Amino acid sequence: MVICAEEVEKARHRFAGRIHRTPVITCESIDKVAGCKVFMKCEHLQKTGSFKARGALNAVQKMKDEGPVKGVVTHSSGNHGQGLAWAASESGLPCWVAVPRNAPPSKIDAMKCYGARLELCEATHRSREETCARLAKELNYQVVEPFNNPDVICGQGTIGAEIVEQVPDADAVFLAVGGGGMASGITAYIAEVRPDIRVYLVEPEGKELAAYLTNGEITPERDVVDTVADGIRVLKVGEYCYPILKKSCTDKVITVSDDEIRAALKLIWTRTKQRVEPSAAVPLAGLLKVSPSELGVKKAVLLLCGGNVDLDFVP
Amino acid sequence: MVICAEEVEKARHRFAGRIHRTPVITCESIDKVAGCKVFMKCEHLQKTGSFKARGALNAVQKMKDEGPVKGVVTHSSGNHGQGLAWAASESGLPCWVAVPRNAPPSKIDAMKCYGARLELCEATHRSREETCARLAKELNYQVVEPFNNPDVICGQGTIGAEIVEQVPDADAVFLAVGGGGMASGITAYIAEVRPDIRVYLVEPEGKELAAYLTNGEITPERDVVDTVADGIRVLKVGEYCYPILKKSCTDKVITVSDDEIRAALKLIWTRTKQRVEPSAAVPLAGLLKVSPSELGVKKAVLLLCGGNVDLDFVP
Repeated sequence: MVICAEEVEKARHRFAGRIHRTPVITCESIDKVAGCKVFMKCEHLQKTGSFKARGALNAVQKMKDEGPVKGVVTHSSGNHGQGLAWAASESGLPCWVAVPRNAPPSKIDAMKCYGARLELCEATHRSREETCARLAKELNYQVVEPFNNPDVICGQGTIGAEIVEQVPDADAVFLAVGGGGMASGITAYIAEVRPDIRVYLVEPEGKELAAYLTNGEITPERDVVDTVADGIRVLKVGEYCYPILKKSCTDKVITVSDDEIRAALKLIWTRTKQRVEPSAAVPLAGLLKVSPSELGVKKAVLLLCGGNVDLDFVP
Repeated sequence: MVICAEEVEKARHRFAGRIHRTPVITCESIDKVAGCKVFMKCEHLQKTGSFKARGALNAVQKMKDEGPVKGVVTHSSGNHGQGLAWAASESGLPCWVAVPRNAPPSKIDAMKCYGARLELCEATHRSREETCARLAKELNYQVVEPFNNPDVICGQGTIGAEIVEQVPDADAVFLAVGGGGMASGITAYIAEVRPDIRVYLVEPEGKELAAYLTNGEITPERDVVDTVADGIRVLKVGEYCYPILKKSCTDKVITVSDDEIRAALKLIWTRTKQRVEPSAAVPLAGLLKVSPSELGVKKAVLLLCGGNVDLDFVP
């Protein structure tokens, strides 16, 4: 299966009526701080509180359409786990999730609330993948990878399809990047349908994505990034995501520090009153780091990717 | 001037295009907890982050329409002060606010940002009123009372006009009550235009509003209520508000504790992702305290009155 606009449209049709078409909000005081018109796509108001519901439901529904499924399993620090647990429950399937021990308690609770059974593992990508693979084998369940899965990627790509309809005169989109499933889904759609809209990837310090996209080599020896943005701690983008991001975004990577993410989060909380999670502030942190006028950006779309944050979290 | 639907419609016309028609949101998981369909009117997304912008702008605009004004002054723990500072700035007028020392720092900062000059006073209603009166005399500015002012009341009443349009099949509205300006404005409008919709007033413990509405006597000797809901700490409802609330709401007062307000706030934060302030959770706390089915309430409108809350506040 090729990741393309046609497959994204198929995903959209597949889960029509069960996934919210999330609103796009604006805020004058953020426009002033940013120096351009800012449109925020509210995926924190999506089912399960993050965009992950899209990819998970698309993957589970397609799997069921293609034949019998006993259950699904994945690894997640929270949002994909919630999305998959919800999608499985919607589809009448059991769900297991391998969860790193440093996942936020609220996300762990929410996965349980959606009916998932959890297996705690170490806070490394390797431990997550190994635990997930072991569970899949033991239970004879199918794995729904959090980002390196074409059906998940096309599900997240539906955000791109909504963006071009909701903000037709956008000239740039800013996305946080972790494993790259959402970033590559949206990028693939936009690059095909609206190549005039630039997609900027915003990464936390320590990810070194620009170098990886340029020469294909990962410098850091660890497999996670130490960042306050708990939704994007995976170091390496997935194999399916890599060529899409390399083609369209190699020269459009912006790196932000935790302090910059926290400052952007404070702005979103106080100015828009939207209680988004730290990862959702990463695109604004990126926009604030660059000069929109120098880049020729007049209308920027930022993805508020999720709103699942502990009650006692203070930015 | 009589407080009535016609005056509310005049207010609406007076500030048309400068005040947001705020959205009404719903949330399945809150419906489940509440036991009825819940519609949340988002005044935390209003200009200045609370409904107070409505009454302040109506009062200032009407004052200017009627003759020359040198400046305006009020007393406020935050939201009315922000509303008035903004309305004054929109109208090219200077603004002073008498602010109790226990007002939230974020609200103090915001009043300054909107251009107001502040005079700190004691955390009693008497000190607030005395400081405000002294400033008005010294500066020869006009006082815009936070709630006991017919133009302010009619400005807040425009929320009622929007509610009956946005949720035409509502059978009940739940409002937090402090000084009673918003509650009486909305109640006056709804009682006249849609008397089939019941208005419930939700008060913090220690206010004893039901007894006051019944027999006109205030038992507590203090003039403020000790509550986490900083927007509704005034004990006594205003003289203009009293007869309206007495007529329509005497048997519809619900009392909630700080713990119940905090629990409702946690629900709103985690389920709707809306970062409202504690006062905005008071109506939900009230709804959760009663049995909607016993009251015959199927579709309840809750007013999310504001979203101005300190960054480090934890419910």
